[in-house]
Amino acid sequence: MKFTLRARTMVEFGGTAFLLMAVVGSGIMAERLAGGNVALALLANSIATGAALVALILALGPISGAHFNPAVTLVDAMQGGIAWTEVPFYIAMQITGAFGGVAVAHLMFGLPIFFASHHARSGRAQIESEFIATFGLLAVIWGCARVHSQAVAFAVGAYIAAAYWFTASTSFANPAVTLARAATDTFAGIRPANVSPFIAAQLAAALAAALCFRWLAQQAKPEAK
Amino acid sequence: MKFTLRARTMVEFGGTAFLLMAVVGSGIMAERLAGGNVALALLANSIATGAALVALILALGPISGAHFNPAVTLVDAMQGGIAWTEVPFYIAMQITGAFGGVAVAHLMFGLPIFFASHHARSGRAQIESEFIATFGLLAVIWGCARVHSQAVAFAVGAYIAAAYWFTASTSFANPAVTLARAATDTFAGIRPANVSPFIAAQLAAALAAALCFRWLAQQAKPEAK
Amino acid sequence: MKFTLRARTMVEFGGTAFLLMAVVGSGIMAERLAGGNVALALLANSIATGAALVALILALGPISGAHFNPAVTLVDAMQGGIAWTEVPFYIAMQITGAFGGVAVAHLMFGLPIFFASHHARSGRAQIESEFIATFGLLAVIWGCARVHSQAVAFAVGAYIAAAYWFTASTSFANPAVTLARAATDTFAGIRPANVSPFIAAQLAAALAAALCFRWLAQQAKPEAK
Amino acid sequence: MKFTLRARTMVEFGGTAFLLMAVVGSGIMAERLAGGNVALALLANSIATGAALVALILALGPISGAHFNPAVTLVDAMQGGIAWTEVPFYIAMQITGAFGGVAVAHLMFGLPIFFASHHARSGRAQIESEFIATFGLLAVIWGCARVHSQAVAFAVGAYIAAAYWFTASTSFANPAVTLARAATDTFAGIRPANVSPFIAAQLAAALAAALCFRWLAQQAKPEAK
Repeated sequence: MKFTLRARTMVEFGGTAFLLMAVVGSGIMAERLAGGNVALALLANSIATGAALVALILALGPISGAHFNPAVTLVDAMQGGIAWTEVPFYIAMQITGAFGGVAVAHLMFGLPIFFASHHARSGRAQIESEFIATFGLLAVIWGCARVHSQAVAFAVGAYIAAAYWFTASTSFANPAVTLARAATDTFAGIRPANVSPFIAAQLAAALAAALCFRWLAQQAKPEAK
Repeated sequence: MKFTLRARTMVEFGGTAFLLMAVVGSGIMAERLAGGNVALALLANSIATGAALVALILALGPISGAHFNPAVTLVDAMQGGIAWTEVPFYIAMQITGAFGGVAVAHLMFGLPIFFASHHARSGRAQIESEFIATFGLLAVIWGCARVHSQAVAFAVGAYIAAAYWFTASTSFANPAVTLARAATDTFAGIRPANVSPFIAAQLAAALAAALCFRWLAQQAKPEAK
Repeated sequence: MKFTLRARTMVEFGGTAFLLMAVVGSGIMAERLAGGNVALALLANSIATGAALVALILALGPISGAHFNPAVTLVDAMQGGIAWTEVPFYIAMQITGAFGGVAVAHLMFGLPIFFASHHARSGRAQIESEFIATFGLLAVIWGCARVHSQAVAFAVGAYIAAAYWFTASTSFANPAVTLARAATDTFAGIRPANVSPFIAAQLAAALAAALCFRWLAQQAKPEAK
Repeated sequence: MKFTLRARTMVEFGGTAFLLMAVVGSGIMAERLAGGNVALALLANSIATGAALVALILALGPISGAHFNPAVTLVDAMQGGIAWTEVPFYIAMQITGAFGGVAVAHLMFGLPIFFASHHARSGRAQIESEFIATFGLLAVIWGCARVHSQAVAFAVGAYIAAAYWFTASTSFANPAVTLARAATDTFAGIRPANVSPFIAAQLAAALAAALCFRWLAQQAKPEAK
């Protein structure tokens, strides 16, 4: 079964909204309860985000592909997956969904709909982290999707939970997520002034990853027997 | 193999009982050991609940469908899954099992069989949280069950573990669970006076979800080739 | 491929030994590092045990069935799985492996080979907990093994991680594990005087579970179509 | 599809680099945030490492086998998996990738490219731990790979997360990882003087494991019917 573009972009909207609720909402809850222990707050935040990704990709992957991420959509189009004519609709709905999810998270925790973050995330180490985080995410998706598509849900959830910890930026790795997290002055926020270098690093990583996958695809040959 | 209604409702009873043991029992243990750190207690509580759901749905899904939740049973009936004549039996056994599970959890921790909760969970943010939590749960189940039914166990366990953190209400998302948690004055409890708004939000979410799924099903078309 | 009894019992020995290393070793490490926070120690202990079970059952299940537990072996024999003539060899090697695993854990942490526990675990609530924990474990195994055998690894790992928290006894649920944990005066220990009521409750639960499964099997009928 | 040696060794390079980023990077982040609570830091470190392994093996296993570990490559060659002529290339790229990953982790956290560890890890208990950890890892891989190859990703991730806790050495279990962790004076480091006994124990375990698997393979017989 294939779904209409209207249905698939609605699913991208809803899935990205739930992803942002998970990221921002669990950050708010974790910070409120953790009594100042940032490691404990990040542990809850990373487990909640990873688990939400497993659930959302398992459920919505068969409908829209469960991108929830403009970088993923762009690389998929470069690989001949999604049609280029559909890319703008996917990305527009991902960004809209991301802001919608932040708004709903704020609603659930009794906060203003949007309020700009004061969380500084700048410097070379942060930008390098976003390049690495995004490159790794795209490699994990590409590797899984080639062979056994259901595994991608577990792989992406596990990867992001880990990357919260092993990158200095806590691994945004997603332009739509980055934009929307500028609109929340909570645990998961990012100062609006720091957004564009993050997105530039993410898009550079997407391009680098697409080139790597092209090279790797050329290195594959049918089995001898 | 299809099981008799008697067997399936017994499994709904037992599964819902174990689910409540997991929710309430792990809440008691976590609060006792956490020395006042609520984030640590909720982390243990959410991991234990999510893990129990994975185990219970993997094991009992092939017998009864592993609903353990009147909202799931109602939406399944609206979709033509379970027969409407069986719905009252499912729901009755889920509610009975939920109270049974609370009683056994109390027994295991040396507490009275039932004692009313004083844990206030009221206000608009809580109700909105329950609507979102239930809508998301039903969407995850519907998305997985359409394509690969075994994935639903991992998806539901992961979703609930995440939703403990990303909703302000810690995501009850289940009318039977909500009723029974009024009968425990422990970490997981809810004041009896706050129960009906929770259940109303859960049922409204179930109706909204069913309408969305109907629309999405109309948007699916056979593959071109 | 079917393996000789000699190979299968060696695998039961090795698997049970690694299970006890995981239970006892992670308890020692967690208690040493947790600075008196018992909730944090139990969180590490429960995650390590659950994860070890996932790995061991995935790897060794196809060889020996990955019982690592006399109660599982007995119920399997009652169900016509393993031959009764092989049961004593399985149980003997499970118990030997359990003590071997405790000894290796002690070796790895620079402790005496064996030293009796002083950790009191007595009273009605503890015994009831062991009955419930074992009954649930056997139900999870039975439910999974009927339909999709690989799922049993995830289900058992998830179940035990949860049951550490939702039972007052932290869920031994295994006579071989119970015996061997009397020989370690560390986090996971149990006073030798408290062992026999635990094992009695576990065996009673095994009998009750086997009767339930027999009843359920009678309630199954071939699909109508 | 089979990939060229060039592609497979590039994937071993990249996968091992990401593994080391996960181990070292999450250790740095966890120690910085944990406020001196070593149990909490190790919990984050072990979950991040295990999750990264799940993602990397799911994604890259179908290309290179996802060894990321000279001990795994050697045992695979002893079993007739990979050709002996390819072994030196695999191991060279694993070691190079491991150092590369440490360098990138340092870059992401604003540290020097390499700086020698002062973290003492010596004594008999540490060496015994490495023997056990490596033997268990190889057994888990061998058991899974015989039957259902996708399970190996979950089994290895779960095993390593557990073994961080149940061995006194926190389970390096990998000569390439051990070498590279000498070049980081952070949470995950090991003093250069302690490296060779670790690697000797790992290689001894690999030999012991290969002998066990040979014996077990001889004990398998075709099913009677």
